[in-house]
Amino acid sequence: MQIKVIRKILEANDQVSDQLRDMFQEKKILVLNLMSSPGAGKTTLLESTLTDLKDEFNMAVIEGDLQTSNDAERVAATGAQAIQINTEGGCHLDGSMVLEAANQMDLNQVDILFVENVGNLVCPAEFSVGEDYKITILSVVEGDDKPEKYPLIFAESKVMLLNKVDLLPYVDFSLEKASNFARSLKNDIEIYPVSAKTREGMDSWYQWLRKEVKTKKSA
Amino acid sequence: MQIKVIRKILEANDQVSDQLRDMFQEKKILVLNLMSSPGAGKTTLLESTLTDLKDEFNMAVIEGDLQTSNDAERVAATGAQAIQINTEGGCHLDGSMVLEAANQMDLNQVDILFVENVGNLVCPAEFSVGEDYKITILSVVEGDDKPEKYPLIFAESKVMLLNKVDLLPYVDFSLEKASNFARSLKNDIEIYPVSAKTREGMDSWYQWLRKEVKTKKSA
Repeated sequence: MQIKVIRKILEANDQVSDQLRDMFQEKKILVLNLMSSPGAGKTTLLESTLTDLKDEFNMAVIEGDLQTSNDAERVAATGAQAIQINTEGGCHLDGSMVLEAANQMDLNQVDILFVENVGNLVCPAEFSVGEDYKITILSVVEGDDKPEKYPLIFAESKVMLLNKVDLLPYVDFSLEKASNFARSLKNDIEIYPVSAKTREGMDSWYQWLRKEVKTKKSA
Repeated sequence: MQIKVIRKILEANDQVSDQLRDMFQEKKILVLNLMSSPGAGKTTLLESTLTDLKDEFNMAVIEGDLQTSNDAERVAATGAQAIQINTEGGCHLDGSMVLEAANQMDLNQVDILFVENVGNLVCPAEFSVGEDYKITILSVVEGDDKPEKYPLIFAESKVMLLNKVDLLPYVDFSLEKASNFARSLKNDIEIYPVSAKTREGMDSWYQWLRKEVKTKKSA
């Protein structure tokens, strides 16, 4: 009974996300769904990316949180267009929420739309919001066992960003172990060790963004 | 429609958790529901607690994870009785899962039963598993804004453990800000800054456990 209800919810979500995908495709916007645990550094990663690439791309952000508009305010401070969704307790974004937000934005001329999901390694993995790719950010402080313990979200992701590498000297974390397990879940996952705070490794992430925007425009 | 379904699920859970609470009460077991983000250090905190207090208390653990029995193996290595629940994608434990696990354990003579929930700051807050208290562990690496952004789980908790304080010199985290916000959600929340790894501050947590076991036995 419960399974049937959940399936219906997922099917309804797929219809809305197909509609979103068509809209984004028509405008040739690269749409990335950013997912992670709470506190893995999604917003700091966005702040750095929006600041460093502001002269290259027109970027916009949809922020998802249970409550507060703190994150939208942080990213808007970089000059980017930003809108906040409050899920009021809901543990992930869905297509309808993103559609409502997108309809309030000016998406003409936007090259990249980042959707920052609710901090959660479980629920967001199942709900498409019309994105081209899901990106999972894992802070090295969380431990190298997380791809093994939360497999779906890594299996669904095109990129795994291993964030907070500036803290590697102080924690037990094997980049190799985390990377190998992520690749066993998705063999072509792209893996970038970064520190959004110190900017270490961020260039590889920016190169990936440049490549994908180019692909999107020429599609 | 969806809200109605969710209410029914919560009501059904409350019935099972009342049954669990009666069972635990009869045996005078202190039951603690441990919740946190992935990688905040729940299992390491348990390993330290089970090791340090093994001569004082008989302790047992129910572990919740999407997949793997890694955590149950880690805590069982301390000598404690441990059982693993795999939720197969489910983002929290519920009463029925804990009842099934509890029925497979020998809970006579147990003083403290720890239930380690799935790593998630959202969903576990709504589901009682018959516990006396919910305990939320926040790693200082996650940021001092988490009580504000995930209010329900902190409002529901009797204790907030601020873990990984050994990393405080390397991150921006205000103990005061996090504590003040947690207290604004629940004014009598007990707050202990700890490092489960270095054992810093763990004595205050152990003192709290001793006090609560005593209260339980004399009830």
